[in-house]
Amino acid sequence: VTDTELELTGLGPAAAKTAKRAPDRREAICAAVFQLLGEVGYDRMTMDAIATRARASKATLYRTWPDKPGLVAEALTWRFGATPDAPDTGSLRGDLMALVSFACQISNSPDGEVMTGVMTAAARNPTLARTLYECTFESKQVLHETIVRRAVDRGELPSVTCAGLLHEVMHAMIIAHKLTSAEPMDEAYAAHVVDDVLIPVLANSAARSDRCEPPPDAA
Amino acid sequence: VTDTELELTGLGPAAAKTAKRAPDRREAICAAVFQLLGEVGYDRMTMDAIATRARASKATLYRTWPDKPGLVAEALTWRFGATPDAPDTGSLRGDLMALVSFACQISNSPDGEVMTGVMTAAARNPTLARTLYECTFESKQVLHETIVRRAVDRGELPSVTCAGLLHEVMHAMIIAHKLTSAEPMDEAYAAHVVDDVLIPVLANSAARSDRCEPPPDAA
Repeated sequence: VTDTELELTGLGPAAAKTAKRAPDRREAICAAVFQLLGEVGYDRMTMDAIATRARASKATLYRTWPDKPGLVAEALTWRFGATPDAPDTGSLRGDLMALVSFACQISNSPDGEVMTGVMTAAARNPTLARTLYECTFESKQVLHETIVRRAVDRGELPSVTCAGLLHEVMHAMIIAHKLTSAEPMDEAYAAHVVDDVLIPVLANSAARSDRCEPPPDAA
Repeated sequence: VTDTELELTGLGPAAAKTAKRAPDRREAICAAVFQLLGEVGYDRMTMDAIATRARASKATLYRTWPDKPGLVAEALTWRFGATPDAPDTGSLRGDLMALVSFACQISNSPDGEVMTGVMTAAARNPTLARTLYECTFESKQVLHETIVRRAVDRGELPSVTCAGLLHEVMHAMIIAHKLTSAEPMDEAYAAHVVDDVLIPVLANSAARSDRCEPPPDAA
């Protein structure tokens, strides 16, 4: 993978640097998948094109990832599977604004277009749907739990607040806005999501705590 | 359009009956568009296939609808543009359950698949996006205003409750669930949306009434 090719993907200098530092097969293939998802979309991306772009032999590619959904799942995990640190601004509203603003930034970026394309393909493909769930929900769960736990400790939310609702409703608002509205996803939009939707939903969730599953390793 | 062809579309007997009763060109063409959207999706549907399916001449088709986005917009309006009566169960929760359950039923039906496909195409097409907005939001606005106004009259909501939030948040929850979850959209899901999300958001909206635009013909 050349620098020029990486620049074309919109992955940015950080990803390009990573690819140069550890130019192993998996990274080159995952980067190629992301490039092609952005350029031609999920449905028109072929395994042959991925092999060519990654300068990998088809035998190598098919031996490790026999099908396209599995390979796209691998690339999604490589790109989005990490768990970022929870924002810690000292207030629930500050933490939620940081969280939602970051989600809006990703959604506005080329990565957001790729995610939208994969999401619509996932509606017809259980393997992709499962990976999207892991990358966007399971790996971010601890982040949402941390934000809610700190707010509970500060007395801003009732002690039984359901952190799962934060994820569910935030992502619903952002996904739907991305797909159905031409309005910008800017700071004013983030404030609308936080003040008009997320805070009221979280503040109320104590009343429905029977529906909230405890986190796996709740202290 | 034959009965067999209509049955294949999942439009159901009511639509078939309408098409037989008033077999004009517009209905036949719109029905053909919906059949093909369900069968091959937006991107692979051609104007030629629509003309063949509707037994219309290409000249007729292109004279009235010169492009595919305009034609799909016409078909969406034909199928989803009407404003249904507002449910009137005597309570806010009852009305919201009726509203959300109905939206879940459409989403679970073949029409829901067509809407999902068009929605993802609309992300790249302003004409489609505008029509989707008209069909799903503008034509349903009076419905949401009626439900909120009755709840305000019963003392269940503050007098400045923002009806626009009801639409925005309900559709976000349903669209995101449709695209990202394999869980059923059943009565339990509808109750979750109503009790855990919509009622808290509506009850809180008085605090943010500066963000709520008044309806065009508010009495």
